[in-house]
Amino acid sequence: MIKFKVKTETREAFYEITLEVQRAVDRSGVSEGICHIYVPHTTAAVLIQEAHDPAVARDIVTHLRRLIPREAGFEHQEDNADSHIKATAVGNTVPVFVEQGKLCLGTWQGVFFCEFDGPRTREVWVKVQG
Amino acid sequence: MIKFKVKTETREAFYEITLEVQRAVDRSGVSEGICHIYVPHTTAAVLIQEAHDPAVARDIVTHLRRLIPREAGFEHQEDNADSHIKATAVGNTVPVFVEQGKLCLGTWQGVFFCEFDGPRTREVWVKVQG
Amino acid sequence: MIKFKVKTETREAFYEITLEVQRAVDRSGVSEGICHIYVPHTTAAVLIQEAHDPAVARDIVTHLRRLIPREAGFEHQEDNADSHIKATAVGNTVPVFVEQGKLCLGTWQGVFFCEFDGPRTREVWVKVQG
Repeated sequence: MIKFKVKTETREAFYEITLEVQRAVDRSGVSEGICHIYVPHTTAAVLIQEAHDPAVARDIVTHLRRLIPREAGFEHQEDNADSHIKATAVGNTVPVFVEQGKLCLGTWQGVFFCEFDGPRTREVWVKVQG
Repeated sequence: MIKFKVKTETREAFYEITLEVQRAVDRSGVSEGICHIYVPHTTAAVLIQEAHDPAVARDIVTHLRRLIPREAGFEHQEDNADSHIKATAVGNTVPVFVEQGKLCLGTWQGVFFCEFDGPRTREVWVKVQG
Repeated sequence: MIKFKVKTETREAFYEITLEVQRAVDRSGVSEGICHIYVPHTTAAVLIQEAHDPAVARDIVTHLRRLIPREAGFEHQEDNADSHIKATAVGNTVPVFVEQGKLCLGTWQGVFFCEFDGPRTREVWVKVQG
């Protein structure tokens, strides 16, 4: 398992981590297989989405905020129940295929770390199966 | 493939199954690899979320009920279209890394079976790849 | 990696692809393992859901449209920010277990390609690990 850190700077934002994940694939030495990306947090997520126009990520963050407002009479007492629900909607793990040592992403796809309760220093775990 | 049952007691609730999944890993004999957890139902899901404060799971159930009400003019005639949509939002499968025979979960993470159309006796399927 | 195409005929609809995925498993020659299904697009998704009553898929499409309307003051300028958000909610990849050369699906489950910005000719990528 290869781990790397993501330093987030605001409560909610997406950070592209495609290069960091590719570096983990490089370190693994696997040329053909599957790269599993796993976020060990409960108020953050990982997502494969459009990496070309950064407005897409901002629109997702904004709309999740509309659907899951911070104040909605939640029971959990840490003022971040919304963050847990947003992370649940997006998911904490995705696999990406690896061929010839490279992540196989669609033309517009990138890998994003999704912060929903920052700013914090977060971890991403990667395991590449040959 | 290892299967185990989950007996749910109400229409909607989350049940922590971390121990049952760890037992499946033990039975598999795999010490390093990936444990895939799969729910073979269409109105239930599996989720990795906070296992410390049970209010988090309740807040997720409550908020999904707000976003996806049982009565919303659905076409499907079994009074559980909402259950299918909730299961879709959460997802029916997650992988967890395994090292030294143990599930690698983040500090606050547990594995939850998510019932959205109980009470029922449900199945969880587990496959551990070395 | 095995690829196949899905031709979609409307802006939003789900298409069952269970047979196409089973054919990819057949071609892989793997009799026991995991079949990973991956959508390389950012406005489409893949989902395991009920394949018996087609009303379930329609209810999911309809309700996602209620929660994520096409016009909601989005920043992204291609009139499909909603499609990206719907794809995010559903997810772009799922694994299915394979035993004796067959996909292991629950009684009511099928694999669906979810179009959120059609009509288009789309791709699905499949990798089967033994």
